[in-house]
Amino acid sequence: MTPPPSRSPRVSSHAVAAALDALRPQFGDRLTENPTIRTQHANTLSRVPSEPPDAVIFPLTTDEVAAIVRTCAAHSVPMIPFGTGTSFEGHVNAPRGGLSIDTLRMKRIVAVNADDLDCVVEAGVTRMELNDHVRQQGLFFPIDPGADASLGGMAATRASGTNAVRYGTMRDNVLALTVVLPNGEIVRTAGRARKSSAGYDLTRLLIGAEGTLGILTEVTLRLHGLPEQISAGHCPFPDIRAACDTVIRTIQCGVSIARIELLDEVQIKACNAYSRLDLPETPTLFVEFHGGPAAVAEQVERFGDIAREFSSGAFVWADRPEDRTRLWTARHNSYWAACGLRPGAKGIPTDVCVPISQLADCIGETKVDIVATGLVAPIIGHVGDGNFHVLPLVDDSDKAELERAFGFVDRMVARAIAMEGTCTGEHGIGQSNRKYMALEFGDAGLALMRTIKRAIDPLNVMNPGKILFD
Amino acid sequence: MTPPPSRSPRVSSHAVAAALDALRPQFGDRLTENPTIRTQHANTLSRVPSEPPDAVIFPLTTDEVAAIVRTCAAHSVPMIPFGTGTSFEGHVNAPRGGLSIDTLRMKRIVAVNADDLDCVVEAGVTRMELNDHVRQQGLFFPIDPGADASLGGMAATRASGTNAVRYGTMRDNVLALTVVLPNGEIVRTAGRARKSSAGYDLTRLLIGAEGTLGILTEVTLRLHGLPEQISAGHCPFPDIRAACDTVIRTIQCGVSIARIELLDEVQIKACNAYSRLDLPETPTLFVEFHGGPAAVAEQVERFGDIAREFSSGAFVWADRPEDRTRLWTARHNSYWAACGLRPGAKGIPTDVCVPISQLADCIGETKVDIVATGLVAPIIGHVGDGNFHVLPLVDDSDKAELERAFGFVDRMVARAIAMEGTCTGEHGIGQSNRKYMALEFGDAGLALMRTIKRAIDPLNVMNPGKILFD
Repeated sequence: MTPPPSRSPRVSSHAVAAALDALRPQFGDRLTENPTIRTQHANTLSRVPSEPPDAVIFPLTTDEVAAIVRTCAAHSVPMIPFGTGTSFEGHVNAPRGGLSIDTLRMKRIVAVNADDLDCVVEAGVTRMELNDHVRQQGLFFPIDPGADASLGGMAATRASGTNAVRYGTMRDNVLALTVVLPNGEIVRTAGRARKSSAGYDLTRLLIGAEGTLGILTEVTLRLHGLPEQISAGHCPFPDIRAACDTVIRTIQCGVSIARIELLDEVQIKACNAYSRLDLPETPTLFVEFHGGPAAVAEQVERFGDIAREFSSGAFVWADRPEDRTRLWTARHNSYWAACGLRPGAKGIPTDVCVPISQLADCIGETKVDIVATGLVAPIIGHVGDGNFHVLPLVDDSDKAELERAFGFVDRMVARAIAMEGTCTGEHGIGQSNRKYMALEFGDAGLALMRTIKRAIDPLNVMNPGKILFD
Repeated sequence: MTPPPSRSPRVSSHAVAAALDALRPQFGDRLTENPTIRTQHANTLSRVPSEPPDAVIFPLTTDEVAAIVRTCAAHSVPMIPFGTGTSFEGHVNAPRGGLSIDTLRMKRIVAVNADDLDCVVEAGVTRMELNDHVRQQGLFFPIDPGADASLGGMAATRASGTNAVRYGTMRDNVLALTVVLPNGEIVRTAGRARKSSAGYDLTRLLIGAEGTLGILTEVTLRLHGLPEQISAGHCPFPDIRAACDTVIRTIQCGVSIARIELLDEVQIKACNAYSRLDLPETPTLFVEFHGGPAAVAEQVERFGDIAREFSSGAFVWADRPEDRTRLWTARHNSYWAACGLRPGAKGIPTDVCVPISQLADCIGETKVDIVATGLVAPIIGHVGDGNFHVLPLVDDSDKAELERAFGFVDRMVARAIAMEGTCTGEHGIGQSNRKYMALEFGDAGLALMRTIKRAIDPLNVMNPGKILFD
C-alpha cells in the first residue's frame, strides 16, 4: 500500500503569476498571496502534511467562480475548492500549488421552499447557518458531521454523521447542484423534483467527487420537519460485543432510531475528562429517537427491550433539552476530548464502515490490534451504519511509532474491505486514503474512475492529486 | 423539440455475422436469429416503433456477458441489454441493429444477508421472484414499478413506483452493482457497507444509465423488514386540487405514508370497469401506512384529520389483506384499465414529476389542456413524490390526432420543467424522451453527459441511441 510517487510537477510560478495578473483587476483584494492566509488554506486539522496554495481567492457568485475557472484553465493552474477546511484527509491541500477558491463569501440562502421541504443555498453556507435560518419555519437540515462545515464541502465529500441512520447522507439529501466544470461551463444538475429518471445522475457523480470534477457553487437540499418529539439517552455495556449486538438487533428489528452512537471505554474516559461528565467508563451507546409521541414511545420501548438483554446498567434518559445538548455536545467534542488523552500527540483520523453483521468482529479484532500495536486509540462510531472511527494518538516525532500506527491503520482498512466494507464511510479519500482505492475497487474500478476524471478534467486542474494519484 | 436525425448508421451485416460466428461455438442455441424472438426483444409495450435486434443471446454468468461484450466491441456491434422488456420508452430497441443481451437466464439469488438487510441477485431476477424468496425470512424488497420487472432493468432505468414516497427509488435501494464495461472489464462498484465516501459514486452513475455505460449483471439491494402493521384505504375528493392539497399537507406535516396514489375521475371509471370496482367516479386517493401498531394508528389519525378537511366522502379502509390486494391490483392494472377506455387505441405513456407545491397547478393546467386538445387521457400519480402519469389514448392511424397528442405531451413536459420538475420521474429517457433532455439540462449539462458517454463507451456500442441522440 505504498503510494506511487506523484507524476505531476508543481505548476510553474510563471503560469500562476499570469493567472493572478488576469484575475486581479476583477477581484482586487479578494485575491491574496498573504502567507498566513495561504497556510490557513492548507490541511490544518489532521497530521496530513500541509501543502499551501500559491494564492487564495474569494468569489461572490457562480459567475465569478466560472471566470476564475476559465482563467486558471487557460494557464493550467490547479484550483482547490475550499469550504471551512474541516476535512481530515488533505482535501484542501495544494500538492501542485495553484489557487484555493474559498466559498467563504458565498453565503446567500437563495430560497427556502417550505412547502416542498427543500432549499437552495450557496456553497459557503454552513449547516448551522442554514439551521438557524429555517428553524423558525419548523424545519431543519439533519446531516451533522460534527464540524460546522460548509454545505458545499459536505456535498463534495459526501458527508454524513450522527443521524445518517435515519436521515441518510449528503447523497440522499442533495436534490441538485450548481457546478462550474473545468471548462468553465455552468451546469445545474437537476430540478427540484423528488425523483427523476432523466439521464446520468450528475448530482450523485459530483457528490463525493471532492471537487475533482468541478466546483460546487450552489446546493439544493432536502429539509425535514423538526421532530415533534425527541427522546435521547445513554446506556452502558459490559463490552463492545454486547453494545454491537444491541445495535445489530435494533437495526434488524426495524426500530426507527435517529442516532445510535458507540463510544468505547477509552473514549468515554476522554469525554468524562473533557466535557466534565461522570459516565461509567465502559462501552456506551448514545441514542436518540425522533417522531410523533406514540411512535417515539413505541420505538423507545422496543429499543429498551433489546438493550436490557445486553446492557450492564440502566438506561439514562436525557429528556430535557439542556441534558440532550450536553450529551450531544460531548459527543461532538469527542475528537478534541480524545486528543486530550495524550497531550502533544496528534490523532490519525480513520473511518472504516462495514456491513452491520460484521461490526462486532471488525471492532473486536481492531481492539485486539490496538493493544498488540501498543497504541492509545479511542473508538467512536456511527454504529447504526456500521461506521466507526479509531483515533490513534501518535507522537509525530517518533518515526517508529508513526510507522507502527500506519501499519495498524492499513490492517484495519484491509480488514474492513475484506468484510465487504469501505476505507471511508464519511471522511472521503482526499490524499491519505488514495492508497486504499485499488484494494477497494480493483484495477478496473479505479481505471473507470480515472477515465471519468480525464474526460471531464483533461488538464487535471481540478483539485489534482485527490481521490486518484496523479 | 424535433429530434435531430440519427447520425450513426446501422451496423453492417458483415460485422454482425462475424461477431455471431465468434460467439456461436460458446453459446450454441443460446444465441438465436429467430425472427419471432428478435421481434419480442424490441419495444412492444408502448407506441414507440419497434426496432428489433439482429440476434438475441442468453448468457448465464457475468463472465459470459464479458465474453459477449469483448466480441461485440471487437466488431463494433451494438449491444442492447434486455430484462423483461417492460419499459415504455424504447429502451430495448436496436436502432442500429446489433445483439440483444437477455438476462432471462441470470436468475441466481446469490446471497441473502438477513442480518444486514441486503441481498445480491443476478440481473435477471424479477422483483416478485426476489420477494417470494425472502418473504419467509420476514423481509421484502419494496420498489414496485407495477410490472414484474427484472432487478437489473429496474436499476438500469432508476425505477420506482407506488411506495417510493416511503422507501425511495432504485437510487436509494441499490448498494452495489456488478457491471461489464464496454471494454469487457468487470467492475464491482461498491461493497455492502450502508454508506461510503470512497471516490466517484459509480453505483449511482450506472443506476439510470439505461445500459449505455455498461451491462449490469449483479445487483446488491437493500431489503426491509415486512411491516408489522399495514393499513390501507381510499378516499374520494370533489376535485383534483382538493386531492392534491391533501397530499401536499400530508407530506408537509411529515406524516409517514408508504403509498399515496391519485387516480382522477377518468381513471377511476376505467378501473371500475376493468377491475369490477364500484368507486365513486371522482378524483380518489389510495393510501397505505406501514409500521408498528402505535405509529400506524398515529399516522392514520393524522392523515384522516387532513383528508376530512378536503374530501367529498368517507375514507374507506381496506384492512383485510384480500381487500388490500384488490385495491392495489386495481391500481397496478390501471394501465390496462385505461387502455380499455378506448378499445383499439394506443396509450402514450408520460411521466412528469414536479416539486409537490406545484402539483395541483401542474395537474390542473394539464387537465385543461387535455380538454382543449380533445383527448381521452386518464391521470394517475405517485403524488407523494409529485410524479404523475397522463395516458393519452390515440388512434395510431390518425396522423392529425397523433400530432395533437404529441403536442400536448410536449407542452406538459415543458410545463413540468418550467416548474423545476423533470420530464421523467421513473420511466427513463430511452428513445422517446431524448428530445426533452436539452430543455431539462441545458446544453452544458447535456454536453457533460455526452463527455461521460464518449469516455466510457468510445465505440458507442452500449445501447446506442438511448438517453442521448447518437
